[in-house]
Amino acid sequence: MTKPNKAPSERVRVKRSHQRAAYDRETVHAILDAMPVCHVGYIVDGTPYVTPTLQWREGDRVYWHGSSASRALRSSNNTQVCLTVTILDGMVMARSAFHHSVNYRAVMIKGVAEKVTDPAAKARHLETMVEQLFPGRWDMLREMTPKESKATTVLSMPIDEASAKIRPGMPVDDEEDYELPIWAGVIPIRMEVLPPVDDPRNLPGVIAPDHTHSYKVG
Amino acid sequence: MTKPNKAPSERVRVKRSHQRAAYDRETVHAILDAMPVCHVGYIVDGTPYVTPTLQWREGDRVYWHGSSASRALRSSNNTQVCLTVTILDGMVMARSAFHHSVNYRAVMIKGVAEKVTDPAAKARHLETMVEQLFPGRWDMLREMTPKESKATTVLSMPIDEASAKIRPGMPVDDEEDYELPIWAGVIPIRMEVLPPVDDPRNLPGVIAPDHTHSYKVG
Repeated sequence: MTKPNKAPSERVRVKRSHQRAAYDRETVHAILDAMPVCHVGYIVDGTPYVTPTLQWREGDRVYWHGSSASRALRSSNNTQVCLTVTILDGMVMARSAFHHSVNYRAVMIKGVAEKVTDPAAKARHLETMVEQLFPGRWDMLREMTPKESKATTVLSMPIDEASAKIRPGMPVDDEEDYELPIWAGVIPIRMEVLPPVDDPRNLPGVIAPDHTHSYKVG
Repeated sequence: MTKPNKAPSERVRVKRSHQRAAYDRETVHAILDAMPVCHVGYIVDGTPYVTPTLQWREGDRVYWHGSSASRALRSSNNTQVCLTVTILDGMVMARSAFHHSVNYRAVMIKGVAEKVTDPAAKARHLETMVEQLFPGRWDMLREMTPKESKATTVLSMPIDEASAKIRPGMPVDDEEDYELPIWAGVIPIRMEVLPPVDDPRNLPGVIAPDHTHSYKVG
């Protein structure tokens, strides 16, 4: 990653509303860490596909995983992908239709996806994935079997060619429109985590552990 | 759109966990209507890009818009795109790491994006956009200017080649794992809409209208 507000490549340089762009590591990482859902773009037979999945970060790399039989993963491996994470923070209501907008934080990462091939490394990454996306679970689960590990593909790429774009705050109206008696403002939106729901097949006496009550998105 | 559970094309046929697939119009439309944020995939210089934006539906077509100068929109027009909408409904905590999952509803639409070129049609679509994404606003705003309309590009495509994939409910563990004394269940997640925040530049006496208190995502 290059220094703040210098795009690491022309491909990921934010062109529209470039004052909302950030390229520094801290900003990019913070957005990735705040939202596990990502959308991965890849090309099959010359046309684009966008598949939602979960991502997690380990240092300067982003990881995602799925079934080894998945078309999305097989088509992404060893080729150009684009991984985008978006957090909706609010609806921005201006005095003109034109200046209506949304508050959001988004990251786009371009690069070549690489498959984790070493079984021991894959096992470590999957453990990290569970600890990050489902904190508190790993130590209480039964061990992963070799068959399960084999059925799982882990892809990753460096977070080098990345840009963040953030729109915070109030509407930005045309100066003369501030004289209009029209309400403007923001309706904030966030992810709400509800109390855990027990699997009806839980054994008698098995109750929801602490980590299910403290779960946070990201 | 074809009849339920027959994929309209091989390109959008859900291959993994195909029991979670749906291809009927009602299911696809309901997911689009429930989540305005979408991710559009397109190709520039042979590599994929994924850009978040807002979508809205009019009958059997999906629409999105942006600055006429936007690279995403200019690169998407008249070419193959993939528009994906994803709603995260919960974290699924199983008895094994392998069966951890998320509950979600997702739609993928493939097709060729077309620009709305007729100015009157564009004006109508932008009004529909505001009424759907910011209900209650249109009638109280100042009129859109020809310059604003010109600065805005509206793209659309038919919702023909589309698939939905839905994962609801409890973990699906290996049968023998149900004997383990491990808590399993779901942590539901949803979008929370908070009370409106006034723009500090609102004129004195201008208060948040009803539509800002009844706002719902989708």
